[in-house]
Amino acid sequence: MLQITLSPDLPTPLVDQIVQAIRNRIDDRVLRPGARLPPIRQFAEQYGVSRFTVVEAYDRLVALGHLQSRRGSGFYVASRALPAPSARPGDVIERAIDATWLMREMAVDGPDRILAGAGSLPAEWLDEAGVLRALRALTRRKDLRPVSYGSPQGYAPLRAQLQVRLAEIGIGATAGQIVLTYGIHQALDIVCRYFLKPGDCVLVDDPGYWNLFGNLRLYGVALVGVPRTPEGPDVRALEALLAEHQPRLFFTHSVLHNPTGCNLSPANAFRILQLAEKHDFMVVEDDIYGDLAPNAATRLASLDQLSRVIYTGSFSKTLSGNLRVGFLACRPDLAHLLTDVKIVSMMSSAELSEQLIHQLLTDGPYRKLLERLKGRLVEATGRSLRMLERVGLQADPEPAGGVFVWARIPGLTDSSELARLAARENIVLAPGSVFRPQGQPSGYLRFNVGFSDDPRLERFLARALDAGLTANGGEVPTQSHPPAQPG
Amino acid sequence: MLQITLSPDLPTPLVDQIVQAIRNRIDDRVLRPGARLPPIRQFAEQYGVSRFTVVEAYDRLVALGHLQSRRGSGFYVASRALPAPSARPGDVIERAIDATWLMREMAVDGPDRILAGAGSLPAEWLDEAGVLRALRALTRRKDLRPVSYGSPQGYAPLRAQLQVRLAEIGIGATAGQIVLTYGIHQALDIVCRYFLKPGDCVLVDDPGYWNLFGNLRLYGVALVGVPRTPEGPDVRALEALLAEHQPRLFFTHSVLHNPTGCNLSPANAFRILQLAEKHDFMVVEDDIYGDLAPNAATRLASLDQLSRVIYTGSFSKTLSGNLRVGFLACRPDLAHLLTDVKIVSMMSSAELSEQLIHQLLTDGPYRKLLERLKGRLVEATGRSLRMLERVGLQADPEPAGGVFVWARIPGLTDSSELARLAARENIVLAPGSVFRPQGQPSGYLRFNVGFSDDPRLERFLARALDAGLTANGGEVPTQSHPPAQPG
Repeated sequence: MLQITLSPDLPTPLVDQIVQAIRNRIDDRVLRPGARLPPIRQFAEQYGVSRFTVVEAYDRLVALGHLQSRRGSGFYVASRALPAPSARPGDVIERAIDATWLMREMAVDGPDRILAGAGSLPAEWLDEAGVLRALRALTRRKDLRPVSYGSPQGYAPLRAQLQVRLAEIGIGATAGQIVLTYGIHQALDIVCRYFLKPGDCVLVDDPGYWNLFGNLRLYGVALVGVPRTPEGPDVRALEALLAEHQPRLFFTHSVLHNPTGCNLSPANAFRILQLAEKHDFMVVEDDIYGDLAPNAATRLASLDQLSRVIYTGSFSKTLSGNLRVGFLACRPDLAHLLTDVKIVSMMSSAELSEQLIHQLLTDGPYRKLLERLKGRLVEATGRSLRMLERVGLQADPEPAGGVFVWARIPGLTDSSELARLAARENIVLAPGSVFRPQGQPSGYLRFNVGFSDDPRLERFLARALDAGLTANGGEVPTQSHPPAQPG
Repeated sequence: MLQITLSPDLPTPLVDQIVQAIRNRIDDRVLRPGARLPPIRQFAEQYGVSRFTVVEAYDRLVALGHLQSRRGSGFYVASRALPAPSARPGDVIERAIDATWLMREMAVDGPDRILAGAGSLPAEWLDEAGVLRALRALTRRKDLRPVSYGSPQGYAPLRAQLQVRLAEIGIGATAGQIVLTYGIHQALDIVCRYFLKPGDCVLVDDPGYWNLFGNLRLYGVALVGVPRTPEGPDVRALEALLAEHQPRLFFTHSVLHNPTGCNLSPANAFRILQLAEKHDFMVVEDDIYGDLAPNAATRLASLDQLSRVIYTGSFSKTLSGNLRVGFLACRPDLAHLLTDVKIVSMMSSAELSEQLIHQLLTDGPYRKLLERLKGRLVEATGRSLRMLERVGLQADPEPAGGVFVWARIPGLTDSSELARLAARENIVLAPGSVFRPQGQPSGYLRFNVGFSDDPRLERFLARALDAGLTANGGEVPTQSHPPAQPG
């Protein structure tokens, strides 16, 4: 009925091909408002694609306003032309939506869910009682201004506290050079908004932090991936890329890199800064996992002292992801300008959250909490590495510590289908492709060691690899929604 | 020594002319690194401009990294070339900086300061004790997840509560159509990020909400002002503008418009929606002051039911500016897409703040608080109007209620210098030019009735108008930093 042509050999994913084909049919008025789309099963059989692929394509067309879903009845062409939601090229938004699949999955709570692909530690590892204590202490603070707007640059005592903490890792910054933000995301976003214009080139880690990629795409900039090695960004590859590209910014993770878990070496750090100087770009250093590093590690900002480096961090991974308190540190003149960008885009900070973090840093046993977390992480990483070895996955590289193991399935070139199958069993895996700047296929998966010793995960992976079905897109023999298993 | 040419008759402000002239001299290497700039007094005398103008120009050049200030010694050309902070045209950033002057001024606290230009009610009018009570109650809530990331769309019970509140003003929206945001700013910002690309045309109220203008400029869009009448946007002017421009969005305030305090009439609302349909643009309705309206008022979203209208609101003006909880309501498909934009730009919400607002809305006497605020506002508005009349200012138009009086000084075409002089006496005035889309001169001032019955304000205004000095840029005879006066 639809008569569309799909080419599995094209680099364009099948979902994108289907979305585009149906949009064309609607634009050409071949599919008219009210027309019913083929049922998912029928479409899948007719075109020889998986039902998941069809579901994803239909869902995306609903989200874009082209189709309507009627419960129990199927999918129909939307009955009236909705205002075009965006003047951007469609793929920009669609790409951004792809990048949020994992986040949306991870945000769904449930007792039987295994968040093996999560980006944060299990809540029960953190100090819930401590946060509640701090919350109660907060109500007795003399400087609490519970109904007033906070200061644009952020609560001054917390900035002063950060000045001390940064000095401890060798970064000299006054409180005036520190801007508090709504999580590390706002820190990165303010930098994007100030420095970037559409068409600019930006360097990112490959693999790297996927949610940042989504945001950069909304700014309409071109992402160029710098391959990651166990010593940090591949400086030879970086040099070669700089012969072709003129980036304005390089976003990179120095310590416990997400997703590979490796640290930047001092030699690579030095070379990156040399190249930044020579090719006139700024480096945005993301150090969100740094406090969890078991050993001393190199930061770019400790070498460069915030001349070409903008340093960003957060307390979301160690104290609370709920409060959304992050920060950036940079040159004094930039701190002033970036505060202005913060004001016009988001007004002021949530001072109450910042006071709570300040309370936790000054009164709470933050150092003890970190020591405890580091100890647990070392043990959990050991267990995860042994489990992965048992089922036949290879950790590559060996992580330097922290939350993640980056592992690949021998012979597999794309782990996305495996992640989709796992989702059906309430197991959230993080497929390697979401960590790649262009969403390129990847046979890797990122495992969060805090969630990876559930026997259901091991059984699922063992079944998948034993069956050898993941490599050819088939289905893993499932137990349909198995009950949660203790141990 | 500098040999620059200033033209007071040009539309470009003198500050901008000085900044540009000095930047040119630095670029041309006439002024070399380390060179000392003329002292402020000398520069002012040589070029016949006020010292404030010179101070502002030098400060901006420091912020841009072109000059360095050495305490007690003066201003010097920066000793090394800093990386160019932005590829945008310089004026974009400078404009944004201008737009934040007022915000920065208002954020400075002090016992002697009179925030007559503020955008929020005095903190003591709000229910500080109630927020503290809710904060304590929060620590006992069973669903508190103090260390976990919140859900991307926002705390579901608060969205359900908002569904009920929106229904009360005739806006039908399910909780799924509501997205919680970091203050109303993030709501507006997410909409910008999704819909706009550089070069797009955007309609805004003239006068209108200045901080939004700053943000829109960072997106590189063209602002077209729609003149405001006592019945809302001037629909004839709007129609004329639509013959020339093809806007993607119209940002407008319906109820208790900032800064004029007037409401949108039903007839104008209907006409705006007709024009939106005909010319295919979306309307972004800002209703941040709506809960303070003394009488029933028309919202665009109540007519259009979120087809072409995106409705935005916040609890920052009535419950707490500290917590930063706002929201948007829109079509279901858009709610999904805008949540994706929220995820990639800022990750999730601060659930704790959202729970606190939920606590205040459900357990707290919110309705009583609103009644009390409305009563106080009516009285304070009366007092402010009488004071302004005594000193010779004209309220124009008469406000329909709420926080602001928009008043002009007969014969004055630009109130900026008056605001600058007031700032020296610790009185923060909001000059009309900051509320204009292009920062055009304006003889108006926005008065916040909650801060406007301080006798020092009346004395300052009386002196200024008696001296007749504001009109020709002279100085108001000052009392240097008068002591705070009771009453």
